Amino acid sequence: MEYRFSNRALSAKPSRIREISARGAVDPEFISFAIGNPAYETFPVEDIRRCADLVYERVPKYALQYGPTIGDDGFRALVKERLQKVMGINPEGNDILVTSGSQQGLTLMPMTMANEGDIVLVEEFTYMGALSCMRGMCTRPVGVKVDEDGINLEALEEACIEAKKYGATISYLYLIPNFQNPMGVCLPLEKRKKILELASKYDFMVYEDNPYGELRYSGEHIPALKALDTEGRVVYAGSFSKILASGIRLGFICASEAVIAKMSALKGNLDSGSPVSSSLIARYFMEEGKLDPHVEKTCALYAKKRNAMVEGLDKYMSSKCTKTNPEGGMFLWVTLPEDADADAVFEACLENHIGVIPSSCFAPDEEKPGKAFRLCFATPTLEEIELGCKRFGDVTKKFFGE
Amino acid sequence: MEYRFSNRALSAKPSRIREISARGAVDPEFISFAIGNPAYETFPVEDIRRCADLVYERVPKYALQYGPTIGDDGFRALVKERLQKVMGINPEGNDILVTSGSQQGLTLMPMTMANEGDIVLVEEFTYMGALSCMRGMCTRPVGVKVDEDGINLEALEEACIEAKKYGATISYLYLIPNFQNPMGVCLPLEKRKKILELASKYDFMVYEDNPYGELRYSGEHIPALKALDTEGRVVYAGSFSKILASGIRLGFICASEAVIAKMSALKGNLDSGSPVSSSLIARYFMEEGKLDPHVEKTCALYAKKRNAMVEGLDKYMSSKCTKTNPEGGMFLWVTLPEDADADAVFEACLENHIGVIPSSCFAPDEEKPGKAFRLCFATPTLEEIELGCKRFGDVTKKFFGE
Repeated sequence: MEYRFSNRALSAKPSRIREISARGAVDPEFISFAIGNPAYETFPVEDIRRCADLVYERVPKYALQYGPTIGDDGFRALVKERLQKVMGINPEGNDILVTSGSQQGLTLMPMTMANEGDIVLVEEFTYMGALSCMRGMCTRPVGVKVDEDGINLEALEEACIEAKKYGATISYLYLIPNFQNPMGVCLPLEKRKKILELASKYDFMVYEDNPYGELRYSGEHIPALKALDTEGRVVYAGSFSKILASGIRLGFICASEAVIAKMSALKGNLDSGSPVSSSLIARYFMEEGKLDPHVEKTCALYAKKRNAMVEGLDKYMSSKCTKTNPEGGMFLWVTLPEDADADAVFEACLENHIGVIPSSCFAPDEEKPGKAFRLCFATPTLEEIELGCKRFGDVTKKFFGE
Repeated sequence: MEYRFSNRALSAKPSRIREISARGAVDPEFISFAIGNPAYETFPVEDIRRCADLVYERVPKYALQYGPTIGDDGFRALVKERLQKVMGINPEGNDILVTSGSQQGLTLMPMTMANEGDIVLVEEFTYMGALSCMRGMCTRPVGVKVDEDGINLEALEEACIEAKKYGATISYLYLIPNFQNPMGVCLPLEKRKKILELASKYDFMVYEDNPYGELRYSGEHIPALKALDTEGRVVYAGSFSKILASGIRLGFICASEAVIAKMSALKGNLDSGSPVSSSLIARYFMEEGKLDPHVEKTCALYAKKRNAMVEGLDKYMSSKCTKTNPEGGMFLWVTLPEDADADAVFEACLENHIGVIPSSCFAPDEEKPGKAFRLCFATPTLEEIELGCKRFGDVTKKFFGE
């Protein structure tokens, strides 16, 4: 039969990453810089196994029955403490909602704060999973130019003025301030402050997506936008996927109590509440004091991988291409010369058994696909990074010369 | 600050059940027939604990990394097998999507199949969590009269004709065919067939929500609507909350491949995928052949509780009230005389330390709150059922006489 799918369903696009992965799966020589998974070797498997078992030893009744939609109170308290300590976020007036991975927050935000047709401002290239959630709620993501140090403030203000001119409502600005996905750039403090001034002036909310905030390998820590937020405009989202394990599907939102109350009600519709066991695994792990040393260990590994990729590209890539120099996170961004045929370069990469993700996947505007690639250094091994950089570099040199 | 919440967020209503629970929490004598949780004593705690540990022993890498959005293949294959065996559903042309509890399906359905403003036909009184999801997607639930044997077919056809007259689109009919929540009624085979004929005639989908289908204590099994569906109009939703444990948040949807593909894409927006560990716990439990005997044991316990409540109400309740006689599930429905003051009876129940849920909570139309209560027999102990029926019966006699 002919189904009448909703506009929301019709907005869903097939995932290009899945297509690249499929190609990789049938190519035994394939090296992937495409997929953005945390490195498996960072997962503290035995500790998680033990903490999971503790859940059933200590609180089986609690873990196996329906739990509170907002999440486990003990875990939420620990998250608040950690946010204060690590990100400088004031717990007063703010509340925590546990989410099923930080992905869930990406839907809860437009679901709670935006109507169909509303504008969401985003970085010129941004996380495709966030774009997908915005489209899935029938909002309109609009890209804003990004510089070496993050979103361009003049372009941001111009977008606000233009939106007003056309009678469009800007619901919120979606930002990944630290080690942005896909570009790897980081917003300096001054820019963060000015963004909040613009938010207040043009009356929009800010969604601060910070899954990589604790993964810094060089440079100085910068306070979260939420730490600078005096008006309750910032909705902060964190994740345990990159600092513990992605498979337990554990994230959280920190926002004003009023916003959390509404989001919690709508989260009830999505799954009644995340599995309590995931929160308790993370809670026990934190209570044992293991999270800080674990994050340190993870950063040490990723720093090595970041260095290896930076060195590999310096060594092998055509000088006609430019790259960002991320101080943390998982990704690095390579921009091709302006006259490049990005599709041809992408195809040549696949033929040379190296997977990268084209900028078009991260573009809010299909008409502006860009000429760049995201390279993930977190997932591959050091050996794969060296060999992959060689392959990728060879392709760029073939197209653009030394 | 003044937040501009979305229409979706503004549709969320405070939960009446939470209010009743709060009342119960401060009343040490309180007995709750209100909450609809599965009985804790049915959870196979030691088996779940062991299966959870097996996950980390056997496939830690798989369980801790991002998994497939559609769910674990082995689990999905087992669900297909079980649906064929227990519900008579043909696996051909159908696919399975793992959901985070069956609650998630209740949002995925309107999200995927309905636009804002579309009509969803529902039973006169229906599961409040489903209503909440429909409202959360800005669709319009419209109630259809229910008889002792489920939804009234003339009223259903009339609703279709009326909708057409006013130019409204009926997206789907939401049904709980077995041991309906809150009324406890069960749809006979002939009615199921005719519903599918009407669905075809008036071109709407059917969402068959079947969390209680395996909890039958008397009478004959009736095939699922999905088993009778030749056109791919039925989206079937199942749950492990009532036959294994609710805390692992494990449900599934069985529908045509085209519908599952779209739902799976939108589920990606909600949480990227449910935790693989939940599926694997259920999978290992099923592979060990433990699910069938476990369901049998659960049914034996619930049958005793159902009998106790039926007998208790026969013994203590005013003859002016009527009740349904559920052949399974968790709920029984008591209807007050037509001239009753349902709010006063409800308050008197709370004062007499007995919690029930008023029909208004299950009403799609606020103007038609009804004069009835849902009583849950699954959660309380046998002693609580006896004492609670006495208390509830006393209240009804005080209002309506013997």
